[in-house]
Amino acid sequence: MLEKLKEEVYNANIELYRRGVVIYTWGNVSGIDRSSGNMVIKPSGLKYEDMTPEDMVVVNIESGSVVEGRWKPSSDTPTHLELYRDFPDIGGVTHTHSINAVAFSQAGMAVPALGTTHADYFYGDIPCTRELTQAEVQTDYEKNTGRVISETFKNTEDILAVPGVLVRNHGPFAWGKDAAESVYHAVVLETVAEMAAKTLSLNPLSSMSAYILDKHYFRKHGKNAYYGQSL
Amino acid sequence: MLEKLKEEVYNANIELYRRGVVIYTWGNVSGIDRSSGNMVIKPSGLKYEDMTPEDMVVVNIESGSVVEGRWKPSSDTPTHLELYRDFPDIGGVTHTHSINAVAFSQAGMAVPALGTTHADYFYGDIPCTRELTQAEVQTDYEKNTGRVISETFKNTEDILAVPGVLVRNHGPFAWGKDAAESVYHAVVLETVAEMAAKTLSLNPLSSMSAYILDKHYFRKHGKNAYYGQSL
Amino acid sequence: MLEKLKEEVYNANIELYRRGVVIYTWGNVSGIDRSSGNMVIKPSGLKYEDMTPEDMVVVNIESGSVVEGRWKPSSDTPTHLELYRDFPDIGGVTHTHSINAVAFSQAGMAVPALGTTHADYFYGDIPCTRELTQAEVQTDYEKNTGRVISETFKNTEDILAVPGVLVRNHGPFAWGKDAAESVYHAVVLETVAEMAAKTLSLNPLSSMSAYILDKHYFRKHGKNAYYGQSL
Amino acid sequence: MLEKLKEEVYNANIELYRRGVVIYTWGNVSGIDRSSGNMVIKPSGLKYEDMTPEDMVVVNIESGSVVEGRWKPSSDTPTHLELYRDFPDIGGVTHTHSINAVAFSQAGMAVPALGTTHADYFYGDIPCTRELTQAEVQTDYEKNTGRVISETFKNTEDILAVPGVLVRNHGPFAWGKDAAESVYHAVVLETVAEMAAKTLSLNPLSSMSAYILDKHYFRKHGKNAYYGQSL
Repeated sequence: MLEKLKEEVYNANIELYRRGVVIYTWGNVSGIDRSSGNMVIKPSGLKYEDMTPEDMVVVNIESGSVVEGRWKPSSDTPTHLELYRDFPDIGGVTHTHSINAVAFSQAGMAVPALGTTHADYFYGDIPCTRELTQAEVQTDYEKNTGRVISETFKNTEDILAVPGVLVRNHGPFAWGKDAAESVYHAVVLETVAEMAAKTLSLNPLSSMSAYILDKHYFRKHGKNAYYGQSL
Repeated sequence: MLEKLKEEVYNANIELYRRGVVIYTWGNVSGIDRSSGNMVIKPSGLKYEDMTPEDMVVVNIESGSVVEGRWKPSSDTPTHLELYRDFPDIGGVTHTHSINAVAFSQAGMAVPALGTTHADYFYGDIPCTRELTQAEVQTDYEKNTGRVISETFKNTEDILAVPGVLVRNHGPFAWGKDAAESVYHAVVLETVAEMAAKTLSLNPLSSMSAYILDKHYFRKHGKNAYYGQSL
Repeated sequence: MLEKLKEEVYNANIELYRRGVVIYTWGNVSGIDRSSGNMVIKPSGLKYEDMTPEDMVVVNIESGSVVEGRWKPSSDTPTHLELYRDFPDIGGVTHTHSINAVAFSQAGMAVPALGTTHADYFYGDIPCTRELTQAEVQTDYEKNTGRVISETFKNTEDILAVPGVLVRNHGPFAWGKDAAESVYHAVVLETVAEMAAKTLSLNPLSSMSAYILDKHYFRKHGKNAYYGQSL
Repeated sequence: MLEKLKEEVYNANIELYRRGVVIYTWGNVSGIDRSSGNMVIKPSGLKYEDMTPEDMVVVNIESGSVVEGRWKPSSDTPTHLELYRDFPDIGGVTHTHSINAVAFSQAGMAVPALGTTHADYFYGDIPCTRELTQAEVQTDYEKNTGRVISETFKNTEDILAVPGVLVRNHGPFAWGKDAAESVYHAVVLETVAEMAAKTLSLNPLSSMSAYILDKHYFRKHGKNAYYGQSL
């Protein structure tokens, strides 16, 4: 079942690896099929170089049970499920431990919107969640990780306007309209985090005016976008 | 038309990608044919690995209209045009979002001339433009980006003496006698920005005497240059 | 003798090189055969690209003498021996001069446990040993290097819970259940050291709650682990 | 003439390039034949990927004149000559603009001996020369660059004990018993400079006891050395 989505999710996982933002098994990508209510995700702990599309695991969004697959799904599965449940516009989710994004997560800091590279993809700071409580960590940890992300975006109208987050003391999750776009956003998040860290080291008081953020974001997104080809 | 220039501009875009200073579609190179008054530039939003020389777009310098090409030109086209109009000595222009140059742009700082690597190519600090006003951003943004670069160099006799600039909160533009040289200067700019950032982290009071800057710059440029082969 | 272990230790040395954490001859991996009381280790000063499994050297744990091999063993051999003698659970040892781990060693600082990437492998800070005394350096230096590591872990129940250490002014040693796992831990140690250095640069007061450390460590280790496949 | 030395010097230049410490034409390696009193050096401004051993240039040490070769020698030739004249033990010289070594040069700081990686190759800090005077820069600049290096080592008994230096506001020169070893030392210099920069960022008061420096240096050098194979 869902062979095309398995192929997409497999390719997105491989792309993540090829871009150099994950080593070993430190990352996972999923994609959703809204019509059947199932998601496809990387198996837990398998090496990227050893996987094939058939190794991807199908999980039901509502029940959280494995529908098909010879392996256990990623241990972060409950986090992915929570994001798909709470945000109907999300079609793909990527989790990494990329170095600069992790550094901001560990520092408990948002990645501030300091330039147009950031503004081309993220309409504002990339927030860092609050710390999970001891109770939230000890019971249903991965599900609560999804919930604290939802909480961080609870006043957000468009979940795709800031398609990524830093989980406190953990690392980034990114999303998009499909699995491939979620990987794209995860790579961009890592890159703008590196730019921001270097910027703050040169000048801790760096900032960007709101009208530049608006201009660059809406140059690429929404009905008045004019970047790229209109295919 | 302009098949040779298309090939040059295509090769310069590919070289930019190969040097590792751009990822995805984050950069663009153009070259000018002064005799016909046209420029050739990368199409907007196309991946480097998918392009061919025929995909390059020909744009008229004066009118800004597309003269030939199946794609929309780079969204930064009006910035390139402005530079060619204001500076007759420029033959090629490169724009990137390379990480260290962007960090200085976001910090609102010039890349200071701290050593001979810098002095071999840039006769002085690589300036950072002022911030564009809200009006300049909201109307004709890309053209105004070119204008603020021109403004930054308005008292400059030789535009090739400092062949690059940082646009505030955005990133670097570099130029040269042709497309290939503008890429060369973009890569050097990124490298000397990385050197400067590390230097300032070791010693915030670092500086270089003017006579060392003079020596190294004129060892490679002008009528008394003696670096390289006299071919 | 021990042909299979030689192959394992050879492969582990090559993997170390391939992962980019050593250049030239700056690292060595060993593995132990507890039943015969011998260890297999890289020869001293040989280049990774020139070695074969047959070049590996067999050394007796108790006597420290070479049992088989045409080369002198790594000059760090007495350190490896000391670790195998003092910690019966260690099956492999890796030493590198990887850049970020060395930086913490030279700074005399532990790598603090600041996030879940760290917690997935190291149950607490990765300690830095005390400085060796002049007497310890001048006589039996490499053996005393092993002893100061043992001293650092003298109150540790499970030596595999924090499978690595920084030797003051020197660099990291890592260990595991076999040679391959010790390399894995050496690469992770370098990566979490890089993350920690960047985190402290963003926010010198960064920290992680103990219950997050517990959760992530025990998610992957011990009888209640649920990460990966149960093969 | 000197075909074997040309091959060695060519190979050393290519190795420098392959190690990633130079881009474009930013570096040069030479080797000396003491019996004939000639040195072989890279031609000025040629790309590494385009050269062959026959392109190497033979220069007489005493006169400084080209003895054989179709190209002009490296513009840094007078610096190399000065080093060979003043230090009879030097057999090869390498100059680079590697990023971390340049950062220390631009900061006007020695690379401090903070750990055993450094001590394995450099018996003490890697010094930074004083700034050249205006007169020294304006007349015979490259020769005076060699002289200020000599001045920095004027009280040194063994020039190979610290086989490298930072020229103020410029970058590193390294040397060895032959061309290949000078490249080796240039790569090590860059690496220990990177380690030192990161160490100082973690702890500005970092230092190493003299007895550790002694131990590591003499473990690899001199009559009591025991590192590597005694071939």
